[in-house]
Amino acid sequence: MKLHHCVGARSFRPLWALEALGLSYELAMLPFPPRVHAKEYFALNPLGTIPLLEDGEVRMTESAAICEYLAARHGAGGLGVRPDEPDYGRYLNALHFGEATLTFPQTLVLRYGRFEPPERRNPGLVEDYSRWFLSRLKGFGAVLGERPFIAAGRFTAADISVGYALMLAEFAGLGEQLPDFAKTYWAGLQAEPSYARALAAERRAAGEQGVSPVPSPLGG
Amino acid sequence: MKLHHCVGARSFRPLWALEALGLSYELAMLPFPPRVHAKEYFALNPLGTIPLLEDGEVRMTESAAICEYLAARHGAGGLGVRPDEPDYGRYLNALHFGEATLTFPQTLVLRYGRFEPPERRNPGLVEDYSRWFLSRLKGFGAVLGERPFIAAGRFTAADISVGYALMLAEFAGLGEQLPDFAKTYWAGLQAEPSYARALAAERRAAGEQGVSPVPSPLGG
Repeated sequence: MKLHHCVGARSFRPLWALEALGLSYELAMLPFPPRVHAKEYFALNPLGTIPLLEDGEVRMTESAAICEYLAARHGAGGLGVRPDEPDYGRYLNALHFGEATLTFPQTLVLRYGRFEPPERRNPGLVEDYSRWFLSRLKGFGAVLGERPFIAAGRFTAADISVGYALMLAEFAGLGEQLPDFAKTYWAGLQAEPSYARALAAERRAAGEQGVSPVPSPLGG
Repeated sequence: MKLHHCVGARSFRPLWALEALGLSYELAMLPFPPRVHAKEYFALNPLGTIPLLEDGEVRMTESAAICEYLAARHGAGGLGVRPDEPDYGRYLNALHFGEATLTFPQTLVLRYGRFEPPERRNPGLVEDYSRWFLSRLKGFGAVLGERPFIAAGRFTAADISVGYALMLAEFAGLGEQLPDFAKTYWAGLQAEPSYARALAAERRAAGEQGVSPVPSPLGG
């Protein structure tokens, strides 16, 4: 398997899943955004987005979907929740929620607060979507309660999906505003050994392939 | 099972899946947006968003996740693609893509083109995210090719996920700009008998429960 990745970008989700499952893979690092700095990448992925996972004939571009795929297809049950388990619905919901609901508002915060040239920045929009993110995160807190993991009493791909949204929040300058439950939950996920392994794999590959080790959401 | 829904909103995805699977369910209609017009709904769903699916103890709020859940848990294999099928990765990717990549840009087009009061509207942003949507949709076309369905040679929850994004594009005023492949694909999905049944169920429930039948994205 081959994963195309930019440092700190949402392709960190499948990287983390690969490490959590102990699978062997090749990590291809790209400068961010590839559609500007690595135009040859369009030949592999017509969307120009990362991640891209290549697994035999399979091509996948959605970070949360890849985690789910890896868990179900290559995980021997690890990292996934099976349809016959009581928490299957909780698992799927959080898996989708981490990307569709918690990540997209932050892309606006980053784009209109940092990436666009000064004359196109938009503080009102940054404020609208910072509040949106924090409000949806509060809703997640009501579902999480006191649990260390969102589903099935164990670390799953759903935690990776939401966990990356919290990692991104720190990049986006929202770290200070995270509610206490989210700080505690995120600290617990960072304590998973696979998290450190994924960070190390990313750093090592960036060094070997001559890509900046600064997380992409910070403009590296 | 009970599905909470607003006419024309993304909760149409699970409604369509329920009809496609022939499951029995209760449809609770809400005025849009419920967080403004039906504050009592927060007691059921702390996020205030639709959809909400109640299935025994299970509570789910992500529209694409609910479709996947219904297919895997209640569908006897119909509407889903199993992990051991070759198109499992294609299925999951399109299922997530329909919401995370094709729907969120349109929510910006609607919000800053139509829902916000005139002084907060933002034509530049509407243009940015219309182009974003159309560019990502073009990438989906490259993956779809000439197929009538995105995965496994049959109608699945992934088609419902992407199909709703195309329905929303018409609501958002982007219908004319859809590329030909998308118009053809969408016409094929609308020809599925379950689509007409879902529209009829929504219209009937809106009438019985005294909710406007105008699709929510049009401001009804």
